[in-house]
Amino acid sequence: MSLDAFISQIEKNKAALVARLAEAVAIPSVSGDAKYRKHVFEMADWMKAQLEKLGATASFQPLGKQMLNGEEIDLPPVIFADLRAKTDADKKKTILVYGHFDVQPALKSDGWDTEPFELVHDEKTGRLYGRGSTDDKGPILGWLNVIEAHQQIGLDLPVNLKFCFEGMEESGSVGLDECIYKNKDGFFQGVDACCISDNYWLGTKKPCITHGLRGVTYFKLHISGPGADLHSGLFGGVVHEPMTDLFQIMSRLVTPQGEILVPGIKELVAPLTDEERKRYEVMEFTIKDMDDATGSSTTISDEKESVLMARMRYPSLSLHGIEGAFSAPGTKTVIPAKVVGKFSIRLVPNMTPKAVSDLVVDYVNKEWAKIGSKNKMVIEGDPDGGKPWYADPNHWNYAAATKATEKIYGVKPDLTREGGSIPVALTFSEVTGKNLLLLPLGRADDGAHSAPEKLDLDNYLRGTQLLGVYLHEVAASKA
Amino acid sequence: MSLDAFISQIEKNKAALVARLAEAVAIPSVSGDAKYRKHVFEMADWMKAQLEKLGATASFQPLGKQMLNGEEIDLPPVIFADLRAKTDADKKKTILVYGHFDVQPALKSDGWDTEPFELVHDEKTGRLYGRGSTDDKGPILGWLNVIEAHQQIGLDLPVNLKFCFEGMEESGSVGLDECIYKNKDGFFQGVDACCISDNYWLGTKKPCITHGLRGVTYFKLHISGPGADLHSGLFGGVVHEPMTDLFQIMSRLVTPQGEILVPGIKELVAPLTDEERKRYEVMEFTIKDMDDATGSSTTISDEKESVLMARMRYPSLSLHGIEGAFSAPGTKTVIPAKVVGKFSIRLVPNMTPKAVSDLVVDYVNKEWAKIGSKNKMVIEGDPDGGKPWYADPNHWNYAAATKATEKIYGVKPDLTREGGSIPVALTFSEVTGKNLLLLPLGRADDGAHSAPEKLDLDNYLRGTQLLGVYLHEVAASKA
Repeated sequence: MSLDAFISQIEKNKAALVARLAEAVAIPSVSGDAKYRKHVFEMADWMKAQLEKLGATASFQPLGKQMLNGEEIDLPPVIFADLRAKTDADKKKTILVYGHFDVQPALKSDGWDTEPFELVHDEKTGRLYGRGSTDDKGPILGWLNVIEAHQQIGLDLPVNLKFCFEGMEESGSVGLDECIYKNKDGFFQGVDACCISDNYWLGTKKPCITHGLRGVTYFKLHISGPGADLHSGLFGGVVHEPMTDLFQIMSRLVTPQGEILVPGIKELVAPLTDEERKRYEVMEFTIKDMDDATGSSTTISDEKESVLMARMRYPSLSLHGIEGAFSAPGTKTVIPAKVVGKFSIRLVPNMTPKAVSDLVVDYVNKEWAKIGSKNKMVIEGDPDGGKPWYADPNHWNYAAATKATEKIYGVKPDLTREGGSIPVALTFSEVTGKNLLLLPLGRADDGAHSAPEKLDLDNYLRGTQLLGVYLHEVAASKA
Repeated sequence: MSLDAFISQIEKNKAALVARLAEAVAIPSVSGDAKYRKHVFEMADWMKAQLEKLGATASFQPLGKQMLNGEEIDLPPVIFADLRAKTDADKKKTILVYGHFDVQPALKSDGWDTEPFELVHDEKTGRLYGRGSTDDKGPILGWLNVIEAHQQIGLDLPVNLKFCFEGMEESGSVGLDECIYKNKDGFFQGVDACCISDNYWLGTKKPCITHGLRGVTYFKLHISGPGADLHSGLFGGVVHEPMTDLFQIMSRLVTPQGEILVPGIKELVAPLTDEERKRYEVMEFTIKDMDDATGSSTTISDEKESVLMARMRYPSLSLHGIEGAFSAPGTKTVIPAKVVGKFSIRLVPNMTPKAVSDLVVDYVNKEWAKIGSKNKMVIEGDPDGGKPWYADPNHWNYAAATKATEKIYGVKPDLTREGGSIPVALTFSEVTGKNLLLLPLGRADDGAHSAPEKLDLDNYLRGTQLLGVYLHEVAASKA
């Protein structure tokens, strides 16, 4: 069977695949540091050349300039690439793939045992150490590996592929959304489904597929009173203090058990179905995993399913800090004149930034009226904040990824959602109007933004096989 | 009458007195800046020479060294000076006078129209502009002026004088308390009452005498949970957040109306007597004065007496800030791992830092138990904090100052207390065991720590007369 030949070919290519990843890791394409910007361009050239060598039609999409570390510098280009199947391309589905070729900063002194920009294979543990190994160079090379192996065994691609690779993901994806929307009716036409490999397994043992991300909307609570900071000896007890007012309002937003006190928020949350509940029950996860991740034993619930749902399918409200108050070490007896409390709410279906913003603004105004202060209060919402992203996990795209995972790993993957945001997932869903899938290759302990970062060789090889088999399952799906 | 001769002599000396103040202002004795430290020493030499020229026995009390701006430098000495009356010294009372010869920093660019270290007499307004004019060079020179005028008219001093002048008041009076306690049984023996001219009238029209200061005790509320700061997307809703807990506890300390919610605090406050109530009624003060001082209309009460009592005779609790939370401009979606909330309570008779600290610690621990968080909380009190200072205003020392004020200003002075702290007042009261009096020369609008600083010439001259007449009234008192 041709699929088995593909799987074997990946095994055979092991040394070459590691060498390819080593070549990519050796280019320190750190997007957040102006000094490294030339390496991001170097990495873009390298990626484009790799794609073209494999027969893809690739182009650079320029993004203009940005200010970084006080200087105006060029943004690295987005790469658009097309690779159509050799036969029956018009009858085959088209999968859009996204990934990024820039990385987080890394210095050996940050806690690496090896040089961060040198891929080191630890034979004992089977780990491939290096900055970008798992985030996101390993996964994007996975796609190149898939194409190459097909060509080596003379097997045509079962689908057409479109690639969108960027070099600014670790620095806020500056310019990306605009570039995508601009090409909505061009490059992004004709896509049947999307796939992104840029997240991680829930734990370290069981693969997962991710079909949801929380959104986020940010709030600033401005309270001002006196014309300047006051001495608490002279004015304490005399005036309404902005800080006292701020603590009153912000303490009324959320309970220590995480319950959001803003009326109407809970009602926006999509109800839990039995089907969904079962997903949490089977997930490979323990409270200890969470404790390891937080470095503490501070979960609000002691029940696995509640903890998972708190992260994946319920909103949360976090108080981040105060601007304008005393924040240094030591003691200072100041009455701050003007303070800005910062908090945000993580959004899940069917919440929208607009609806939540309106509810919070209304609630804060009502609570403000109750406390009877002569200070001035303005609550600033963000109705254009980040919407949650949610994809139908019963779509053929998910069925294909599930079958592929079962084939490679012999286990049904966990069907997860994540607590954080990957804005581009929402952008692609909106621009293509098609189902999108997050198919992670790495594990929860890969240390994507830490030191050291690694990708297990097994995950790299099996992940590559998974991507290839997924494409074949897509082709076999009845769309 | 000899007292009239003294009063006239001060008028005659006007030009010389202004010249003396100009000489003192010209020495930029800024104690808070290592670059200026040599000028504090220069000022100490100048003061000692002036005292000795007038016949006093003066000595420097060395205080050792301190670290400032990263370098170890010498502390300026405290000046002890004795000046006994020429006749019947043993039968005469002894008054201890405190003041300071260092000043706040000042740059012309801070908002001065003239050079800060050059005394400028604005003939139109009668104001003497210059750093230190009112805080505290004008007032301490007032004593020198008194002695000089007595000598000029051949009038013996009615009392013996002891002076304690320091050069570190604007920088925390480093080393002063230790120096005073060390000389408790030496230099500070034989004092009958104390007088400090280092505060201001309540307003700009009516003189006052001050007989109380609030104390202060500081608290740090430490809450910690996760091992490191967390991403609110990944962990929001999952863990007990230190910030949420902190806002819960700190919002339960004080209401927006300034009411302290810690049980037992109110009960410690000395009850209001009718005699005291009347003092607030006659004080020259309006809500507008307070609004001018705060640059806002944010007084909790609209009644003059309540506002004055809130500052002078009731405790207050102010929330100052949070260490460890997000405090910069912009947005950041962090869950801070470890936060320290800072607040303080201003103390009045009969509160002690120890009693208040105990009550707060107990209350916070009880409230903490209620909120049911798995985070760790430690409330750090300061049982050795600053006690309030209160002097009996029916003492002969106050009667003398009141009569002197009536003689010079033709009005009964307001009998005030202040909201802030002047720790040395408490130290002298404890070390001498005698009544202490705060007798301000300057007005509320002198801008002691701002730009520009001024002392009205009229206040300088009449203030000098007041100090002299006060000494005569002290002598006439039946102690």
